[in-house]
Amino acid sequence: MSRQSVQMELAERPETNIIPGQTFRLVSVPVPTEADLQDGQLLVESLYISLDPAMRGWLVDRPSYLPPVQIGEVMRAGAIARVLASKSSVAAPGDIVSALVGFAEVRILHESAGTVQKAFPLPPNGKVTDLLGVLGLTGMTAYFGMTKIGEPNKGETVVVTAAAGATGSVAAQIAKIKGARVIGTAGTDEKVRWLREEMGLDVALNYKDPDFQKKFKEATPDLIDVFFDNVGGEQLDMALARANKFSRFVICGGISQYNTAEPQGPKNFLNVITQRIKVQGFIVLDYATEFGAALQQLSQWLAEGKIRRKETIVKGGLKAAEGAMISLFEGHNTGKLMIEVKNPEGESKL
Amino acid sequence: MSRQSVQMELAERPETNIIPGQTFRLVSVPVPTEADLQDGQLLVESLYISLDPAMRGWLVDRPSYLPPVQIGEVMRAGAIARVLASKSSVAAPGDIVSALVGFAEVRILHESAGTVQKAFPLPPNGKVTDLLGVLGLTGMTAYFGMTKIGEPNKGETVVVTAAAGATGSVAAQIAKIKGARVIGTAGTDEKVRWLREEMGLDVALNYKDPDFQKKFKEATPDLIDVFFDNVGGEQLDMALARANKFSRFVICGGISQYNTAEPQGPKNFLNVITQRIKVQGFIVLDYATEFGAALQQLSQWLAEGKIRRKETIVKGGLKAAEGAMISLFEGHNTGKLMIEVKNPEGESKL
Repeated sequence: MSRQSVQMELAERPETNIIPGQTFRLVSVPVPTEADLQDGQLLVESLYISLDPAMRGWLVDRPSYLPPVQIGEVMRAGAIARVLASKSSVAAPGDIVSALVGFAEVRILHESAGTVQKAFPLPPNGKVTDLLGVLGLTGMTAYFGMTKIGEPNKGETVVVTAAAGATGSVAAQIAKIKGARVIGTAGTDEKVRWLREEMGLDVALNYKDPDFQKKFKEATPDLIDVFFDNVGGEQLDMALARANKFSRFVICGGISQYNTAEPQGPKNFLNVITQRIKVQGFIVLDYATEFGAALQQLSQWLAEGKIRRKETIVKGGLKAAEGAMISLFEGHNTGKLMIEVKNPEGESKL
Repeated sequence: MSRQSVQMELAERPETNIIPGQTFRLVSVPVPTEADLQDGQLLVESLYISLDPAMRGWLVDRPSYLPPVQIGEVMRAGAIARVLASKSSVAAPGDIVSALVGFAEVRILHESAGTVQKAFPLPPNGKVTDLLGVLGLTGMTAYFGMTKIGEPNKGETVVVTAAAGATGSVAAQIAKIKGARVIGTAGTDEKVRWLREEMGLDVALNYKDPDFQKKFKEATPDLIDVFFDNVGGEQLDMALARANKFSRFVICGGISQYNTAEPQGPKNFLNVITQRIKVQGFIVLDYATEFGAALQQLSQWLAEGKIRRKETIVKGGLKAAEGAMISLFEGHNTGKLMIEVKNPEGESKL
């Protein structure tokens, strides 16, 4: 009997929340072998799979910056993987790559997707999982959003929502590096403490605090110059009400709105005119030609200790993927959330 | 007995719509004379007073780009006026000026407000009322919004809302001059006909048409590259749903939301991310240092017949001001709406 590989496929598009046992389906398929490879293809095994809020958008059947995941297709996800066999010049057997492997233990990828990247040398204090976090698309999302759109100046006030999340925590630290006064929001007192004590933010606020609105106002006496938003909804509205003239609103995500069938638009939208706000959305993939320079900068900041990070690594392999994805939208993770499929130093966790 | 000057003061802040006989109060005051002037002041009589959607915002008791009009204060408004007496070097008796005279027949202004501008030589086909329209803040609002934020390229699709209004009609024509395909929306079939037949727009649509949404979609097969918005609300939401990648949304106004106590935020806001939209608000006064160059360009386009305009001039002086202001929000005007207080060529209309 051939060895089996577990993978998670999209079974049904969720209307609102992901439904355990219904949205996704765990299946076993025969492990592909070297003999199955065509020119330009690589056979890889997943080590760590990334969980990102953006994945919710890929489940919606609507044209977007990436095509929607189809019913019956393996759920798309970024991952760190090891090459088992290769008919591609991109990477050789044994190499570690980052790639859109998807929710699969073993998979054949094609180099032409442009998404298979051989791991670059890590800084002295770097870890392989950083390739999904600070030194992956997550870190670069924070980097390009903050430096290309937010452009904080020394002494300006920057607010980052979901600041204890993977992207937010890097974005907030980049704003600190740029000399801004940085306020972060998060959903638990523990995250707030972490932001204040370990990430060095000037102010951290729990958005579930009954006095949040009052505290938010008090924390922004000079109004907001840069708003780096991962949340949307009420926090976006509050920020519009506290926006400074010529402020920049970096629209990175809107996790409060992803699972709702009736999204709430920002009621204070007209402040965009009176305060001359620039509200701009972006997708990290648009900056692909600048990835090299961004990674070099992020590696340097990581090596210098100017950027710190935390990871929430869920063990249990693909069986834990569905639960981990649901917990992402419930805000249980601090820093980068990922599933460990196979520890590269040890045994398979399956 | 001294001569009297009529003026309209703010009596009560409206919660939603302006209420006839309640929001404003018409009063008579003794006409000031030359003897009342201090150094730097000018005594002026209004000829034409401008009515603009932005005036609604000045009635709200909230800090903004201009201070709110106070209860008992003459309502702020732009005007074309004639200088009766002057202790300022800005203009001499007999000169025509454009200034924030307000809703008043005769008034003393101070030059230091920086808002008293001596009329510049008009192009051959120019009229004095153009100083409130194409060659005034209205035309420049269209100019800066379209050229500095919208930046339409040849062949791109531009949508202008309230395209038969004062600002919209100029904005739409500038987009045509830049070689774009231009779609305008308006609220009557007559305006739509005017936009198509006289303004030369590629498509004009009545937003009150039951099939508007369908027609809007059909009119934007290549999606929208520049959205120049004066309206907000549903039209903004429809545009977000049809936004092209890297489109520019010029937020000039939101007249659909000015009179409501419960503003509607754009439900499709998250498209800002997926389509990487830049949404930017602006105030024409921010471009003051570039007014000269803008007026030169607009004068040239007017002289060349590349920009045409229409005016809706309400006779009856200040007694007609309240009704005219209400009609502005009901969308009765095509092109620039103004009150004639005194025809410079003839007798006073009071």
